[in-house]
Amino acid sequence: MRSRDSAVSLMLEAAQKEAIETTWDRLDAQLPQCGFGELGVCCRHCMQGPCRISPFEDGPQRGICGATADTMVARGLVRAIAAGAAAHSGHAKHLAHTLHKWVKGQAPDYNVKNEAKLRAVAARQGISADGLSVRELAAKVVASVFSQFAEGEEPLAWAGATVTTGRVEALAKLGALPVGIDSSIAEMMHRTHLGVDADPVNLLLGGISCAIADYTGCHIGTDLADILFGTPVPVVSEANMGVLKENSVNIAVHGHNPVLSEVIVRIAGEMQDEAKAAGADGIVLVGICCTGNEVLMRHGIPPVTHGVSQELPILTGALDAIVVDYQCVYPSIVEVARCYGTKVITTMSIAKIQGSTHLEFVEEDAAGKAKEIIGVAIEAFKARKGRPVNIPQVKSKVVAGFSVEAIVAALAKLDAADPLKPVIDNIVNGNIQGVVLFAGCNNVKVPQDHNYLVMAEELAKRDVLLLATGCGAGAYARQGLMTPEATEKYAGPGLKIVLTAIGEANGLGGPLPLVLHMGSCVDNTRAVDLTVAIANKLGVDIDKLPVAASAPEFKTEKAVAIGTWAVASGLPVHLGLVPPVLGGPQVTSILTAGIKDLLGGYFIVETDPQKAAEKLFAAIQERRAGLGLGTRQW
Amino acid sequence: MRSRDSAVSLMLEAAQKEAIETTWDRLDAQLPQCGFGELGVCCRHCMQGPCRISPFEDGPQRGICGATADTMVARGLVRAIAAGAAAHSGHAKHLAHTLHKWVKGQAPDYNVKNEAKLRAVAARQGISADGLSVRELAAKVVASVFSQFAEGEEPLAWAGATVTTGRVEALAKLGALPVGIDSSIAEMMHRTHLGVDADPVNLLLGGISCAIADYTGCHIGTDLADILFGTPVPVVSEANMGVLKENSVNIAVHGHNPVLSEVIVRIAGEMQDEAKAAGADGIVLVGICCTGNEVLMRHGIPPVTHGVSQELPILTGALDAIVVDYQCVYPSIVEVARCYGTKVITTMSIAKIQGSTHLEFVEEDAAGKAKEIIGVAIEAFKARKGRPVNIPQVKSKVVAGFSVEAIVAALAKLDAADPLKPVIDNIVNGNIQGVVLFAGCNNVKVPQDHNYLVMAEELAKRDVLLLATGCGAGAYARQGLMTPEATEKYAGPGLKIVLTAIGEANGLGGPLPLVLHMGSCVDNTRAVDLTVAIANKLGVDIDKLPVAASAPEFKTEKAVAIGTWAVASGLPVHLGLVPPVLGGPQVTSILTAGIKDLLGGYFIVETDPQKAAEKLFAAIQERRAGLGLGTRQW
Repeated sequence: MRSRDSAVSLMLEAAQKEAIETTWDRLDAQLPQCGFGELGVCCRHCMQGPCRISPFEDGPQRGICGATADTMVARGLVRAIAAGAAAHSGHAKHLAHTLHKWVKGQAPDYNVKNEAKLRAVAARQGISADGLSVRELAAKVVASVFSQFAEGEEPLAWAGATVTTGRVEALAKLGALPVGIDSSIAEMMHRTHLGVDADPVNLLLGGISCAIADYTGCHIGTDLADILFGTPVPVVSEANMGVLKENSVNIAVHGHNPVLSEVIVRIAGEMQDEAKAAGADGIVLVGICCTGNEVLMRHGIPPVTHGVSQELPILTGALDAIVVDYQCVYPSIVEVARCYGTKVITTMSIAKIQGSTHLEFVEEDAAGKAKEIIGVAIEAFKARKGRPVNIPQVKSKVVAGFSVEAIVAALAKLDAADPLKPVIDNIVNGNIQGVVLFAGCNNVKVPQDHNYLVMAEELAKRDVLLLATGCGAGAYARQGLMTPEATEKYAGPGLKIVLTAIGEANGLGGPLPLVLHMGSCVDNTRAVDLTVAIANKLGVDIDKLPVAASAPEFKTEKAVAIGTWAVASGLPVHLGLVPPVLGGPQVTSILTAGIKDLLGGYFIVETDPQKAAEKLFAAIQERRAGLGLGTRQW
Repeated sequence: MRSRDSAVSLMLEAAQKEAIETTWDRLDAQLPQCGFGELGVCCRHCMQGPCRISPFEDGPQRGICGATADTMVARGLVRAIAAGAAAHSGHAKHLAHTLHKWVKGQAPDYNVKNEAKLRAVAARQGISADGLSVRELAAKVVASVFSQFAEGEEPLAWAGATVTTGRVEALAKLGALPVGIDSSIAEMMHRTHLGVDADPVNLLLGGISCAIADYTGCHIGTDLADILFGTPVPVVSEANMGVLKENSVNIAVHGHNPVLSEVIVRIAGEMQDEAKAAGADGIVLVGICCTGNEVLMRHGIPPVTHGVSQELPILTGALDAIVVDYQCVYPSIVEVARCYGTKVITTMSIAKIQGSTHLEFVEEDAAGKAKEIIGVAIEAFKARKGRPVNIPQVKSKVVAGFSVEAIVAALAKLDAADPLKPVIDNIVNGNIQGVVLFAGCNNVKVPQDHNYLVMAEELAKRDVLLLATGCGAGAYARQGLMTPEATEKYAGPGLKIVLTAIGEANGLGGPLPLVLHMGSCVDNTRAVDLTVAIANKLGVDIDKLPVAASAPEFKTEKAVAIGTWAVASGLPVHLGLVPPVLGGPQVTSILTAGIKDLLGGYFIVETDPQKAAEKLFAAIQERRAGLGLGTRQW
């Protein structure tokens, strides 16, 4: 089985029939994959290599420079964290530049859409708004953001202001509070150079520090997106390939940063008549990956697919254009698109693909660029019109938009004076056993969505409140788990009581969805904010709460960075694939056990989703016992 | 043959006899090395991998995400450049912090030793010194340095002020002028993340930009070291293991940053009596790698060995301590040291080795730390006293210290009004055919020093002026090529006339050394400064000059970064090993040919040193012809 998504399965049949190569074919062609790489014991950090450590005693136990397996594994992990931090913070910096240009009057298509969030963020960071216009306050916030990238004299203020004091103290004790995002990334690249840091423990501490830089970048990314584009509120939409329409101009926005797609959403609305003039019923905008999550959360734009299946909507023959920004965009989409007349439009100077159409995005003329892009899609529609399409009639209802602000607003309908109280009371009384955040990607090595589905069903049954972001949220959206109906079907009795009470207090006439969509992968900090609020209210640190995270199908270096800061924030973090660390026994032991004594969080590596659910439930019970709350057996 | 260095050969015999594993043994154990890695077509940038591109048509031609061989190769190269830039600029930032602490009165063991250089650097960077004390001016220079790391609005000022305007224009046209060192490193890590930049040409342009960031970091490193510790002037010393003394406390300083070793040099002078009290004749301080080059250039401290042979001085049994800072320090020295009682002392928080003694260096108490370190060495001497040693009686005279300032001062003895004129006149009249800078490392895959020796002898014979830095300079130092005697023996008639004229005008009673030692690997910018001065004087850009560079035994990611900016600066750059790019035909073609049209510089990959010398000579002749100067056949 390649996917649990029936639309994907249908398209894979079409791919086979039409001899179109997909990512699954390329996995098959790569098998067997290199065992040294899988264990993390291959090193190419200098030109004397490649070096490999043998997993057997009669093979080489050190690289040419003398690096041990643990050194290699730790260096590789640290570089992955640095790359993840670079991606998230590059995204955040991009938004900061956009806001900065708006401040300077150079980005006419943008605005501070959410002044309340701007004021809240400023207040949180200790930036006085007294007597300032919105533009002046935005300028101060932007300056504060830029200060987080450069090396400063103090630990990152945006991290310090958004986690518990207990976390800051625990991290400070380990020397793992970075003083700059870019400088931390550079330091990690230095430390992993030949002949610099060889001590795996020291390297891992560096990696944790860089992961906190990643966290900071993520938090800035979410804050600025909310300021520029609005904080999400619950929204109903549909997900999966059935949202495409044969006689419409179908445009997918793909990547991660909403900076362009937000404008495309607006301009697409304005260009419906041009689409109709070209003989279409209109423009259908859909999302892929986290750009899709961003526009779903804020505009109800339906996600067409996610992650590993990103090539397949092209095979419907109905997709006129894929507009990409950056991150997780498979270059192979250009090859598939070539067979179907779909235009792949790259838009960012730092992310090009040979064979695509490059229309470079600039904030100074965002609407103009959006018009140009949609114009290309309309032309592609004209060329396609009349050709047969193969749109699988598969789609699910999805309720998304659960920012922390939206969750608190919903809870306020139960207790306006103390909105978190209903959640805490229900954790205490056991109606909610705990909370699990599902994050991360799809990975072609796992049948798509399978681990997500098995784990969610098992944990929901046992009254665990479920949150999701990124491609994890995408999986639940496509699979119908972000609906009140899923709550009725899968939630345990306690969980159902709570979700129904909140839903009915909010006039939904039924429960909240089984899994709450908190946003894109950069939005994982939304889940931290919620956790921190609960921790602060209870007066305990995060590492005591019955809260855990899971990346059951993770793929990217960004996910490695997120997983590391989730552990650093004090959470048990499940990984559904084995990361390339097993070749380093010391590193493996620290990440799965030793680190628990230092930070409370730790990694649980379990590839069987059933067992993984059991282990997370056990971790939650251990935390409940620690707090003196009632516990349950699996 | 493992090395052309007879001291190394003797120690390798001892290693074999005593069953001590060396880096050469570990190379043997690694053979055959992975062909995918060697070609650059292995990718571990996400958890779906490792992916490999087959060099044969019937194997996979794309990674799981669809990345082609060229995408993989370009991504790998860009990450290597980012790591190199991180190392050099981390070194520079460290010196900036030291100077900053001195400015704030927190680093009592430091000072602005070279006020003239401080003033020259400030003037070059447009920093007014009017009415400022040395401390105030240093504060302004430090602030300017820190501004180069953070993302700014303008291209890096320290790069712009130190290259030709023609270079700035050529790089600007390609969009390859970075606006921050750390931000450029972070951007490259972002671009090389899964699904960001897939276009090998775009990636290479990014890599060039990051290499300019590396150049900037290197230049800052050299400038600040000269300001803090003095600009080198010619100094006579000795090189190789014969400098160790049986009945002395032998201490090696190893790594790259002079920030600690400068203080150790001073404190070792003050602690001679303590060594004598322990029964020693005194303290013998020696250098390894570029920390060795730094203290050789400024204090005449003899280099004991370099690069691949760094384990071997331990086998003499006479080395009491190796004090390391960072970069190119093989973790294996701890294993070898364990067998001989040598103390390996790590000193930097970002560079630890399990099994070593860690005495963390802080600028606030540098002298105190130096005393503690030397104290550990004296104790080790006491424990060693009376045990047999095996010091190979091999050493060479070396004349080092040829900073640009020193070279210009020497030339001024020929023409005080116009010091560069004698060099230019002799290039024009053909006494000097051209200039070649030898830079880079030793690499265990090449018999140590062999490529350096063959190429220098061949090129010198043909009247090419030779400069060297880093382990390249180390090779020539140990092999006796940095002496007037080598000039007599190897220089062609024209070159001999020029070097003799300069030497005699400076009262040396003979010629300058055959190869001029310009410093450590971070000091490669000294050679750029000299080239820029000549280019500006001639009114042509660097890419027209009969100047080339060679890294005949390169090893590190730092070398990849340096090689790239040397090409960007307009030079033909020889590599004596094949970098991991051959799997990407488009990348290979751009680096060895296409880039020449854009920047004038290009890579010449040639593993045979004889042929490499011929190719560099031909490149020089092509440049001479371009300038209308007389040419010669090989």
